[in-house]
Amino acid sequence: MSTQQVLAECRTRVEQQLEQLITTDNALEPRLQQAMRHGLLNGGKRLRPALVYLGYRLCTEAPLSALADRAAVAIECIHSYSLVHDDLPAMDDDDLRRGQPTCHIAFDEATAILAGDALQCLAFEHLSEPMDAVDPGTQLRMLRTLAQASGSQGMVAGQAFDLSHVGKQLTLSQLQAMHACKTGALITAAVILGAQAAGEQDPDRLQRLRDYGDLVGLAFQIQDDLLDIEGDTATLGKPQGSDLEQNKPTYPALLGLEGARARLHALHQEAVALLQQFGPGAQDLIGLTDYIVNRDH
Amino acid sequence: MSTQQVLAECRTRVEQQLEQLITTDNALEPRLQQAMRHGLLNGGKRLRPALVYLGYRLCTEAPLSALADRAAVAIECIHSYSLVHDDLPAMDDDDLRRGQPTCHIAFDEATAILAGDALQCLAFEHLSEPMDAVDPGTQLRMLRTLAQASGSQGMVAGQAFDLSHVGKQLTLSQLQAMHACKTGALITAAVILGAQAAGEQDPDRLQRLRDYGDLVGLAFQIQDDLLDIEGDTATLGKPQGSDLEQNKPTYPALLGLEGARARLHALHQEAVALLQQFGPGAQDLIGLTDYIVNRDH
Repeated sequence: MSTQQVLAECRTRVEQQLEQLITTDNALEPRLQQAMRHGLLNGGKRLRPALVYLGYRLCTEAPLSALADRAAVAIECIHSYSLVHDDLPAMDDDDLRRGQPTCHIAFDEATAILAGDALQCLAFEHLSEPMDAVDPGTQLRMLRTLAQASGSQGMVAGQAFDLSHVGKQLTLSQLQAMHACKTGALITAAVILGAQAAGEQDPDRLQRLRDYGDLVGLAFQIQDDLLDIEGDTATLGKPQGSDLEQNKPTYPALLGLEGARARLHALHQEAVALLQQFGPGAQDLIGLTDYIVNRDH
Repeated sequence: MSTQQVLAECRTRVEQQLEQLITTDNALEPRLQQAMRHGLLNGGKRLRPALVYLGYRLCTEAPLSALADRAAVAIECIHSYSLVHDDLPAMDDDDLRRGQPTCHIAFDEATAILAGDALQCLAFEHLSEPMDAVDPGTQLRMLRTLAQASGSQGMVAGQAFDLSHVGKQLTLSQLQAMHACKTGALITAAVILGAQAAGEQDPDRLQRLRDYGDLVGLAFQIQDDLLDIEGDTATLGKPQGSDLEQNKPTYPALLGLEGARARLHALHQEAVALLQQFGPGAQDLIGLTDYIVNRDH
């Protein structure tokens, strides 16, 4: 199966669940649920759920489990909430995402704040549901993985640093620390969640997967920066060149275009080398890694 | 010990932990941690942690445990995040809370949004920390209790309904449903978390505590409404009469002052009668119930 097919399969699988996750049945204020659905069902690539599923497959030959599904859904809820809040007027102030009106445009600002809050909560609610034949200790470790990656030492810290440094000069190590939190923490958590759902408890293997996640998170961001310069507005779903326009610090700005491409290539090689240590089960995740580095949107 | 002393003891106990919970050490963007501390350490009554502790004492004679402490801290993180977000310009647009500048005034709007997001996440992170000699299944059930009360079927739903009905006429049952979500869900969760931390698993006893929580949550809200009319601005820490001014639906507006007082009295009696079934261990929680009904701020 090609990586595109694998990715499509993961996407279909998680979207079937996301579609059923939030209903307006018996809702006190159905507009809240509608706004949550708007934030969640927006045509995303579902890269983080794919990383959960392929992290799982890396660690076991067993078919994808209900616990892996819960982790895939939970991490997409976190990612979606972060986008809804990032788009707010007080933050990045974006009216469009993937060619569609953002949540506060389609609804209103208060509803977007609350929908984001509720999506974050739903991630933890969904992953804490009691499950037959699942060790509660495993679920607890997974909840902790998700929480540590999402909060004030992870994703939210990265966003806070980013906002307070718009228009300011960053060093390469500052830029790297920012992206390690802002996007890297959740990408790494996705892979680890998949491994934990598969019952992986070997500290060495988990550490190698963390290292892989960190490399791929950085590679993802550099490719994002490159696409902002080289990509095409229609394919990206957001105005090309918007980082430059907003004077955001980027890898190409610090390393030059060629330097950024070389860095991306090196990270790619290193990430694949780490995965190869896991044997044939790593094939799909290597394919996804290639896709992340070569994607055009 | 008087209820005031019990409440002071609970408050001291939880505040010692809240004080140490968030540090700016090694923080990528220390302003985020400062804003989180501002939201968390603001002189609150710490009523929800007290309900956790006294719900615990109701179910066991064992000394308060580290798990009860984690639950008390976690629920106060949720409560604090909700206040930070409620105060935002797009929501209630409040500049003052307990006589102090609100988070977005002391910092800025983006930082307040992110500090709220991070406080919510911290609640789940704190309660999912692995603990010696604690059953992971118990911790998992507690995480679920907290998540269910906080999200789109609980607190956030209540806030969304409230915002979309400012200036509109509500029926008594709508008002009741709104407050059951907005404040009741978290108050009930606090008592249940305490019981769960004490190892309580008897479905009947847990259901009675849920019923108690629902009664006390409503009583809390009616007293809030009454204080807004009868209270004193300096004691309240917010302008007296602000509900009326904002044309917010309240119990006194629907039931009249005397009707609201009678309803409060009836809820109080019913709540205490439920607790009395638990025997002498309920004494402190009965005292706290009396305090909630009679408080002047």
